[in-house]
Amino acid sequence: MSEQHDAVDVIRAKRDRHPLSDSQIAWVIDAYTRGVVADEQMSALAMAIFLNGMSREEISRWTTAMIESGERMDFSSLSRPTADKHSTGGVGDKITLPLAPLVAACGVAVPQLSGRGLGHTGGTLDKLESIPGWQAELTNEAMLRQLEDLGAVICAAGSGLAPADKKLYALRDVTATVEAIPLIASSIMSKKIAEGTGALVLDVKVGSGAFMKTTDDARELARTMVDLGTDAGVTTVALLTDMSTPLGLTAGNALEVRESVAVLAGGGPADVVELTVALAREMLSAARVSDVDPADALADGRAMDVWRRMVAAQGGDPDAELPTAAEQHVITAPESGVLQSLDAYAVGVAAWRLGAGRARKEDPVQAGAGVELHAKPGDPVTQGQPLLTLHTDTPERFERAEACLEGAWSIGEGQPERPDVVMERIA
Amino acid sequence: MSEQHDAVDVIRAKRDRHPLSDSQIAWVIDAYTRGVVADEQMSALAMAIFLNGMSREEISRWTTAMIESGERMDFSSLSRPTADKHSTGGVGDKITLPLAPLVAACGVAVPQLSGRGLGHTGGTLDKLESIPGWQAELTNEAMLRQLEDLGAVICAAGSGLAPADKKLYALRDVTATVEAIPLIASSIMSKKIAEGTGALVLDVKVGSGAFMKTTDDARELARTMVDLGTDAGVTTVALLTDMSTPLGLTAGNALEVRESVAVLAGGGPADVVELTVALAREMLSAARVSDVDPADALADGRAMDVWRRMVAAQGGDPDAELPTAAEQHVITAPESGVLQSLDAYAVGVAAWRLGAGRARKEDPVQAGAGVELHAKPGDPVTQGQPLLTLHTDTPERFERAEACLEGAWSIGEGQPERPDVVMERIA
Repeated sequence: MSEQHDAVDVIRAKRDRHPLSDSQIAWVIDAYTRGVVADEQMSALAMAIFLNGMSREEISRWTTAMIESGERMDFSSLSRPTADKHSTGGVGDKITLPLAPLVAACGVAVPQLSGRGLGHTGGTLDKLESIPGWQAELTNEAMLRQLEDLGAVICAAGSGLAPADKKLYALRDVTATVEAIPLIASSIMSKKIAEGTGALVLDVKVGSGAFMKTTDDARELARTMVDLGTDAGVTTVALLTDMSTPLGLTAGNALEVRESVAVLAGGGPADVVELTVALAREMLSAARVSDVDPADALADGRAMDVWRRMVAAQGGDPDAELPTAAEQHVITAPESGVLQSLDAYAVGVAAWRLGAGRARKEDPVQAGAGVELHAKPGDPVTQGQPLLTLHTDTPERFERAEACLEGAWSIGEGQPERPDVVMERIA
Repeated sequence: MSEQHDAVDVIRAKRDRHPLSDSQIAWVIDAYTRGVVADEQMSALAMAIFLNGMSREEISRWTTAMIESGERMDFSSLSRPTADKHSTGGVGDKITLPLAPLVAACGVAVPQLSGRGLGHTGGTLDKLESIPGWQAELTNEAMLRQLEDLGAVICAAGSGLAPADKKLYALRDVTATVEAIPLIASSIMSKKIAEGTGALVLDVKVGSGAFMKTTDDARELARTMVDLGTDAGVTTVALLTDMSTPLGLTAGNALEVRESVAVLAGGGPADVVELTVALAREMLSAARVSDVDPADALADGRAMDVWRRMVAAQGGDPDAELPTAAEQHVITAPESGVLQSLDAYAVGVAAWRLGAGRARKEDPVQAGAGVELHAKPGDPVTQGQPLLTLHTDTPERFERAEACLEGAWSIGEGQPERPDVVMERIA
């Protein structure tokens, strides 16, 4: 902030592959937040970063500058340690819903500031908003109180955290500069560090339904974020997890809440349970709590108790009937055999087109819409059995959703090769 | 125009090194001109073009799209052929002033639509505006009439030619995307082709005082522009010319007019005369006029006659006293020897700082300000003799100008190696 720079010089430096100085980065982020650096200058810089990269030092300084653009939260007054989880986004990824109450039940506070969905991946807040009465917006005071009382809160991130990131993200979205690892990493980490969590576990998805399509890219993103967290004094661990096929058996808002409640009740699909417990173990370990096994807290109903209190604390009725879509359409198996594959991206786009997601920030979502899976890769299927059920309030959407799913699954003989749910751990 | 595209898709294609289709280029230029593609999107695209380049076909289509964004002029009603010259800009580059009347005196019409200076290179219109009464703005009708009557006109380019270029140039200026060869070439050539000249000679400067610092870059730019002109049916030739040291003995508005008049009177510095005659020969040859030698038209006063009529036709008094700066400051030689070098860029920046140029489009310029050279590389100098005279109306500028010139020249023994005025010809 102290030193004065010129936007053209900063862009030119990155364009010509020179590293940006600490002072250039601090200046450009602050000046952009204040509107002194114009959108067209920042987008040219973002494209130069996209194509020429940033060093670890530059990414770290960039992240710090974004944190310094806004307020920082402080959880040090809480009576227990804090741990947060961030997922890079996937299809059917409802893990936050069972995970936050589970970790809270084990004695670690979980401040889960979440967002709404855009595109083919759903948003945690959209899912919870399918619970009648549930409110995403909390004041900082209410959030802290709930964290102290219940140990977990899932709510909308306030606009005070990293406002530079908010402005930059909207710009990247319209200038084809979203998929740059330094920009993704600094965007995620600036919000998580500003939020003030003591420990952070990153769920970096890999596969067709994820941002990162290859393990190499996912590993680089994970490594970059772990470094950023560590540099900022946050104990940070990342898991690379499979997103070639949807998580669990549902993609859609109320559909995923229902599945999450099943997990909290001790049931639910094996992959959702496995990932929830694996992430819970990492969060507890990062928060240095070693004497509890989250699998027990899931089995004995303690996690469910926290869930019910969390929902109620934010105005929701945990016993209320969840909305269902007005219309269903079943896709059946054309032959018998073993389901070889079911593409996550196709299912995500189908759920989105059925009304579960939004194309623009201001669009509404349908609580009941989405895709229900009746088999996962590796499961035997019989000719004529239901394979997928499509849900929507607006049946004219079935055709477009079905078109997305064409060629998205295959039936054959023998067991397909399936990646592990948790593929790799980076610490 | 017909097909609909999405700006993000076009940016992403160039970002990922895919060639842009004809239809994408036509759409993006038209949509940007209409404000449908936003500045921040175009600047991201310009940076992607800067870093990933464009093929010959893409540059050609890009140029055509910029031409199609505005009006085209037509000189086919004139009774003689037309030839224009464009210089990529240098220090002390007053060549247009003697050249246009010289070529006109040889029977070829010269429609010289010029600009004002920005940064360290002067603008032709700024120079001519130091002549009392002279007006840069002409209607298209007045321009055509003067071309028919006198054979030469130097005036401001109307805003109707390639408006997409005008908008894009202003954007590139603030986003560090000026120096990309595809964008420079298409910017220059779109205006020249839209202007409707039959033949075009390009003076591509090489050296410290030029945009292109190396012969390789200058050659690539020249080749790209010659190809674009040829593709558009304009006979186009380029000369690579030296800009390591200033052209002639003056850099500054009235100072350069005075030197140009000396050349038209049969005198003036040898390098200015040599380049003026060389460019005149190329223009006559490109316009297929082969029976006149421009050296004769310069020597016998015919070029001077056209100059005087040109100045008078635009309201100027060819006999008026030219303005001189209020203050002078002389820099003397600290030792005797041979001037080994005198850096063009340093002289350009010094002249600019003395008030000859502008930092922003809306700044005024001083007619009398600039730098006068008393020796050129290769000339013997005696200790204590004047080396440079600085001219300004605002003497507080002397210090900053002198600072620019520190280390900008050297005196030694023996003849330095000097590049030829005309280094290479590309047709």
